[in-house]
Amino acid sequence: MTKTDMKTAAIIGGGVIGGGWAARFLLNGWNVRVYDPSADADRKINEMLDNARTSLPRLADVPMPAEGALSFVADIKAAVENADWIQESVPERIEIKHTVFMEIQKHASATAVLGSSTSGYKPSVLQEGATNPKQILVAHPFNPVYLLPLVEVVAGGETDPAIVDRACELLTSVGMKPLKVRKEIDAHIADRFLEAVWREGLWLVKDGVATTEEIDDAIRYGFGLRWAQMGLFETYRVAGGEAGMAHFIAQFGPCLQWPWTKLMDVPELTDELVDKIATQSDEQSGMHSIRELERIRDNNLVAMMRGLKQTDWGAGRLLNEHDQRLKDVN
Amino acid sequence: MTKTDMKTAAIIGGGVIGGGWAARFLLNGWNVRVYDPSADADRKINEMLDNARTSLPRLADVPMPAEGALSFVADIKAAVENADWIQESVPERIEIKHTVFMEIQKHASATAVLGSSTSGYKPSVLQEGATNPKQILVAHPFNPVYLLPLVEVVAGGETDPAIVDRACELLTSVGMKPLKVRKEIDAHIADRFLEAVWREGLWLVKDGVATTEEIDDAIRYGFGLRWAQMGLFETYRVAGGEAGMAHFIAQFGPCLQWPWTKLMDVPELTDELVDKIATQSDEQSGMHSIRELERIRDNNLVAMMRGLKQTDWGAGRLLNEHDQRLKDVN
Repeated sequence: MTKTDMKTAAIIGGGVIGGGWAARFLLNGWNVRVYDPSADADRKINEMLDNARTSLPRLADVPMPAEGALSFVADIKAAVENADWIQESVPERIEIKHTVFMEIQKHASATAVLGSSTSGYKPSVLQEGATNPKQILVAHPFNPVYLLPLVEVVAGGETDPAIVDRACELLTSVGMKPLKVRKEIDAHIADRFLEAVWREGLWLVKDGVATTEEIDDAIRYGFGLRWAQMGLFETYRVAGGEAGMAHFIAQFGPCLQWPWTKLMDVPELTDELVDKIATQSDEQSGMHSIRELERIRDNNLVAMMRGLKQTDWGAGRLLNEHDQRLKDVN
Repeated sequence: MTKTDMKTAAIIGGGVIGGGWAARFLLNGWNVRVYDPSADADRKINEMLDNARTSLPRLADVPMPAEGALSFVADIKAAVENADWIQESVPERIEIKHTVFMEIQKHASATAVLGSSTSGYKPSVLQEGATNPKQILVAHPFNPVYLLPLVEVVAGGETDPAIVDRACELLTSVGMKPLKVRKEIDAHIADRFLEAVWREGLWLVKDGVATTEEIDDAIRYGFGLRWAQMGLFETYRVAGGEAGMAHFIAQFGPCLQWPWTKLMDVPELTDELVDKIATQSDEQSGMHSIRELERIRDNNLVAMMRGLKQTDWGAGRLLNEHDQRLKDVN
């Protein structure tokens, strides 16, 4: 990569998600400017960068580009001026987001991508009252952002389609998997599934059917492994066997429907339930610090994705394609 | 393993699940007798065995035991006499299951484990009217049974606790992860999550928010990878960071609740929706035969689980422990 190719990302909000974005861009050769008003953002992001520097290069079989320059800046203006990508990861309150967008657009290039990490808001809601709604879209990533490839890219009513294409191209160039979402919907796609499972999990814990550890085991020793490579529908296609997908649905649809009539309402997050979950989680994982758990998680993700590189499937195929791009650039 | 240690499994119903059980036991050195009245059960089970013989030994770093003897028998009596484990995997209709259980218990040893692969029925319902309810339990596995470790073990009101312990011990000895479920509940634990996600997926396809392929991508490039190693609660514990699990729930609970109020009812499986799913699935995966997809899936599962063996976590730790058991037996 030549100097003139170097791109700059502005990271507005440097928590777990913003910090993950910073690491993803930086280790892929971008310059990164971070703005976060909290006192310990530098420390936290540097800790996350240590994790990312250990894990992300292990996914590549060719040298990664030289790291870009990282700076922590004092205001939004200093972060966003002449940035190619501006990523907002501030708290999930719409008035905060609108205020931040207003300030960003005072200083940003009109052709920059302005992505929001929001998991809940639709892009059209983010665009309300904006100076330049054309450049605003949702770019919703998944923790740890420096390792997991998925980014949901959602355009609002006023987003410029050229900005969406540009966003997908840039995300691909840093090894990610942009998924263009066809329609705006609350919580986009993936989080709708996470919420459906979370809701069900809360009931099971509340009713004493299973502990947090038993629920985690029910996922990671079974369908979690299936979903890491094929997802939901392709898995069922295979399960349906020679008779095909329509047969599968006809056969299993009614039987899957039985428990649909129960537990469809939302469990109340009482203090008692929160305490029960926290206590069970301590019993399950309290022997590891969060730092240790992060490293364990990252090592596991790297190990599985390296496995999938051998089969050239899903995340593995994506990584092989990224290797090829890195080779072409070098 | 000496001859006198050799155990016998009776497989009643030899479809995708029963065949997977047959492969799991056989390749772990058990004798297996299969009873299935359908004309092509032999062919299908032998095809599945080919897949299992290719994939399962790759999970072990030590030699697997010599295969047991496989026989296809003409009636339930010939299958279950003197068997140590009897596994019922017949269609999900309670009157069929009750009839089959009645015939099994005419000829089975009273101390054998009688497991049902049912995904829907509670064990107490299976026990109704049984000659010997003590030996009946749910042993619900996940496809492909010869590779995925999880088995939900659910006792009914009359199940002998000693049979439950024996079941867990035997499942562990064939490399599986028995999860003792504390309370009977429709669909046990894991399938409740699968149904919650399936329900949500049907809505997203029906409303044109995403295709089957986009939904699969939303899963396998993101949280599918997370769940293959840590599950739901431990993942959120890490995401919550230093502030802990109670803080995480307090922070994200309300924001996760937004879309809970919508799409909570069940989409009707109209012909139109079934056709839409089948067509999208053909577009997504129709370039591969089901046999090819099975091999792709198995290769991916082996690759990921071998990755996890290196980190000694989740399914990987289980496989390392199984290697140690195989060494001790040899």
